[in-house]
Parts: sequence; structure tokens; C-alpha cells
Amino acid sequence: MAAALMCVLTLATVVARAADALPSWNDGAAKQSIVDFVKRVATKGGKDFVPPAERITVFDNDGTLWAEQPIYFQLAFALDRVKALAPQHPEWKEKEPFVSLLKGDVKGALVGGEKALLEIVMATHAGMTTEEFEKIVKDWLATAKHPKFKRSYTELAYKPMLELLAYLRGNGFKPFIVSGGGVEFMRAFAEKVYGIPSEQVIGSAGKQKFEMRDGKPVLVKLAEIDFIDDKEGKPIGIQKFIGRRPILAFGNSDGDLQMLQWTAAGNGVRFMGLVHHTDADREWAYDRDSSIGGLNKALDEAKAKYWTVVDMKKDWKRVFSFK
Amino acid sequence: MAAALMCVLTLATVVARAADALPSWNDGAAKQSIVDFVKRVATKGGKDFVPPAERITVFDNDGTLWAEQPIYFQLAFALDRVKALAPQHPEWKEKEPFVSLLKGDVKGALVGGEKALLEIVMATHAGMTTEEFEKIVKDWLATAKHPKFKRSYTELAYKPMLELLAYLRGNGFKPFIVSGGGVEFMRAFAEKVYGIPSEQVIGSAGKQKFEMRDGKPVLVKLAEIDFIDDKEGKPIGIQKFIGRRPILAFGNSDGDLQMLQWTAAGNGVRFMGLVHHTDADREWAYDRDSSIGGLNKALDEAKAKYWTVVDMKKDWKRVFSFK
Repeated sequence: MAAALMCVLTLATVVARAADALPSWNDGAAKQSIVDFVKRVATKGGKDFVPPAERITVFDNDGTLWAEQPIYFQLAFALDRVKALAPQHPEWKEKEPFVSLLKGDVKGALVGGEKALLEIVMATHAGMTTEEFEKIVKDWLATAKHPKFKRSYTELAYKPMLELLAYLRGNGFKPFIVSGGGVEFMRAFAEKVYGIPSEQVIGSAGKQKFEMRDGKPVLVKLAEIDFIDDKEGKPIGIQKFIGRRPILAFGNSDGDLQMLQWTAAGNGVRFMGLVHHTDADREWAYDRDSSIGGLNKALDEAKAKYWTVVDMKKDWKRVFSFK
Repeated sequence: MAAALMCVLTLATVVARAADALPSWNDGAAKQSIVDFVKRVATKGGKDFVPPAERITVFDNDGTLWAEQPIYFQLAFALDRVKALAPQHPEWKEKEPFVSLLKGDVKGALVGGEKALLEIVMATHAGMTTEEFEKIVKDWLATAKHPKFKRSYTELAYKPMLELLAYLRGNGFKPFIVSGGGVEFMRAFAEKVYGIPSEQVIGSAGKQKFEMRDGKPVLVKLAEIDFIDDKEGKPIGIQKFIGRRPILAFGNSDGDLQMLQWTAAGNGVRFMGLVHHTDADREWAYDRDSSIGGLNKALDEAKAKYWTVVDMKKDWKRVFSFK
């Protein structure tokens, strides 16, 4: 009797949990497509059942799990680091992109394009050990504020996506980040903010060197690119790090297109999703012409192939955890 | 009452399981050091307790989880592939290392050293899609036999190590393979043989190219090295793929030394282990002078630092699952 009652109560809890697992999502096609997919894949005995070990899911980070405007948050970190390191680099006073940066002219600094960006990244992400870098990022995240919201950058994680990650985990899915962002930058907060452990974070990376310092081994970050996890690099990163094809992929820009195509091309039921930034009031509205998170080809392909396009303004009841 | 009885029974099962979790290990210092470590780390409230998420463990593959004599099994695969592919490559009749190989002269073929080995690997591991390669490896494993034991190569996984992997998993540890072997070669059997999913397999790798074939995306394996996961490469691979330091590492050769040093240099309790091949009757006996799995510097360092050295002859009751 008691055992039977307990079972009924447990069952009731499970059902209740499923019903409001996504409270920050408005009822509509996007939310429905997620819930339908999870039910089909996770229902034992169903024709679309996928064993838990194969419930691999991949998420872009910038613009998909947290915001990315007015500049990528990792670039904001790099700019702050340039200022902090400037006293040790008198030569920067006469060298672009640093001259412009130190005058506060970000646009001017980035006129040099990818080369300038790479110089900024290398000057701020190399030359220290992996442990030193982790501390630098954590210290920055603990104090830096977003220029528009005056909040910590980690508070700009999207509430609906945090709920989605928890909902997927609760149904036996394994979420990975697959982002163009730096892997060691993201690992400094991914577990705390998203509940995603470091071994499930895939990103762009620099080369490293193993060396002994005072008889202790360290890994030193070198100023040399190892891997760019963007566009064609995303399916390659997935194969390198995970070694099997995801059944769900979520992105927000053309940089995610190949990851979505790679996911879509597998057998069985698949979920491909895009976050469409349509909310100038609560967040930002941008797509085809944006230099950050440009969404053009992938938006057309999503519409042609009936992938799920999340209209932020319409589909999200709340955007962030704070009011 | 019933519930209390059930709890007692469950508790009894857990204790029994711990007691004979390693039945193929003889009682002795090696087995004891493993059990002690697991108890210290996994006992909640203990001063050495480590949360499950941080119970990262790493294992070399060749010579640690399965045998590696008389030649690395992946090299045996490559040699069989050279024979199978020879009709499509008439030029191999006049080109080393292929001339020697096709005459059955492995030693002659390997006179060319690393360059010859690389040519063999590239000729047999590149030019196909990742899915095609997986099928080729699985087909080979299903039919190829080890020259000495006349058994499938996957039957040469060490029974005591399979028990150790299961024991660790049962206590909330997460085992990774960190091996100089090819990552896509190992992933073709790691889950089935070791219970280690593909996303927990780290190894050497070639570069890949994303391309569309008849409107479907594929990843093509290129004849270009991306990463060598050996010696200094092992801690680098651990940082790249896992992003945190293991608390247990097991190897068997000097190629594992840096991985053991990296593991040892972390805070808190650590376990460093070496499989020492001392059993010429049941397996092989080799260490300092062996060209395969040479164990020299790491053996000295293990003794000096009181790491666990598993004496295969003395410490293992059984070596393989078959009699």
C-alpha cells in the first residue's frame, strides 16, 4: 500500500516536471517541437527511441546560450586585458591594433580585420599557464559588467536555454557546447553557469607546450592557433571530440550552419534549432546584415527544411534570469 | 519493516560488490593500493573525498588495457589493409615501405623508421570518410586473429583492467582512454570492449575535411597529422579534451610518463599506476629495452615516487577473459 502510494506520487512528480520544464517558453510551435522531439526520442519502446548514450546534443554558445552584443564577451575580456597589460608593453603605444584600443577606439582597432583580432587574442590568451589563464578569466568574470545591462556577463545566459539544458539532462541527454569561442575561456564558467562540465566544452584553441618549472609540470599557452571551431570546423570538432553525430543541434548564426547540416544528415529523428534575435527591447534584434552573429544562409535553410526557428520576441516569456 | 529489510539487503549487496570487484587481481600491495584509493576518494565526509564530477581517470590503451605484442594491433590492421589495397596501387610494387610489406617482411619495411610508419598509416587511414573508416576497422576486428593466441584482437583486453574500469565506474569515476593509438581506430571498439564511450577516447588523429557529396555532408580523413597523443602530447591531450586534471592515471611505458607526472602534480590524493609486463608464459615479459612499450625512465620514477607498479605475473590471477 505504502509502496504503491509512493509510486503514484513519484509518477505524478515526473509528469508535473515535464509539464513545466520550460516555464520561460511561451506555448507555441517552437516549444512544442522541443517537447515532441524529447518525448519521441526518450520514450522506451517507441519507434524513435534513442538509447541514452546516443542522446548527444550540441549548442553554440555566443548568441545561443548567452548574449553576444554589442561585442563578443570574450573580446570584451581581451580588451580589458590589453588595458591591464599595457604598462608591461610600452611598445603597444606605437603599434596597431593596440594604439587604437588603448584610446578606447574598438572600431578603429578592428579595422585590421582578422589579423588585428588575432593579435589581440594572442597578446591576451598566450604566455601563461593554463591554470593562470583560468584564474584570470574567473577574476574578470567576477568583476566585469556588461555595458548595457550593468550585470555580470554570466547573468546574460538565456533563461529559456538554461531550462532547455536542464530539461534535456533530466531526460538522459548529454549537452555539449560547440562554439567558435575559446575553449579555455568558456570552461572557466560553463559548469557553474550552464551545468556543462569542462569535458563537454568544445571550442577554438591555441597550441600548448608541456614543460617542467621547478620540477613541476605545467602547460603553457602558446601564441599559435591549434583549431578554429567555426563553420566547417564545427562538425570537425564534433567528430574530433565526441566521435559520434549529435541528434540535436542549436545555433544562432551562419557559423552554425555546417553543424546543423551534419546533425540533420544522420539517421532517425533529429532536431535542428536556431535562436533568432528579434527582440530589440529585451535583448537585440539582428540577423542577415549583422557583423556579429550574422544569420542569413542558415535562416533560409532552416525555413526551407522546417528546422525550428525560435523567435525570441514571440517564443520567450523571459530572456534573462534577472528581471 | 519491509523497507528497512530492503535497505539492509541493498547495503549488503554494495559491500559484497566492493569485496570482489577485482576477482582477477591477487591480494597484494597493488590491489590494496587501488581499493584504498577508491575508498578514500569516494567516501563522503572523508578528508580525501572528491566530488564525482572531478573523479576523472585516464588510461593508456596499448599494453595497459589490451596487449601490444608482437606489434601494435593498429599496425597489424594497417599491414592487412596494405595487402587488401595493393591491387589498387601497382606503384607499391616498387616503393618502400610497401615492397617489403607485401613480401611479408615487416622488419624490412620498418627500417625506414618513423617516416616509413607514417607512410603506412597514411596509406591506410586516409582518403575515406570517417564512417567508411569505422566500418573498415569493425570488419577487420570481426575477422582478424592475433598470431600468437589465435583469438580476436579485442579478446586480448586484460580481464583485471576490465574489472578495474567497472569498479571505478561503479564508484562514480569517469574513465578516459588517453593513448598514442589512433582515436578513430580505438573508438570502433572502445565502447563494446571497455564500456568507454567515444567521447571519452582521446588519441592521435589526422586532419579532416568537411565536404558535401550529393548534397550530404561528409568528413573526409586527410593524409596529414593533426595531433600525436604521446609523451608530452598526453597531458596536452588531457587539457584539450577534458580540461581538468585526472586523479588517477594508468600506463605501461615511457610514453605515459608525462601523463603520470601531470596527474601526480595535482592537489589531494592521486593514484599513478604502471602495468609491468613480467609474464612471458601468459603474456610477454619486456620493459627497458623493448622497442614496443619500452618502460625505463617511468619505471625508475615510479619506484622513486612510490607509484603503484603492477607486476603482471604476481598481481594478476588471470590475464585474459578466455582460459
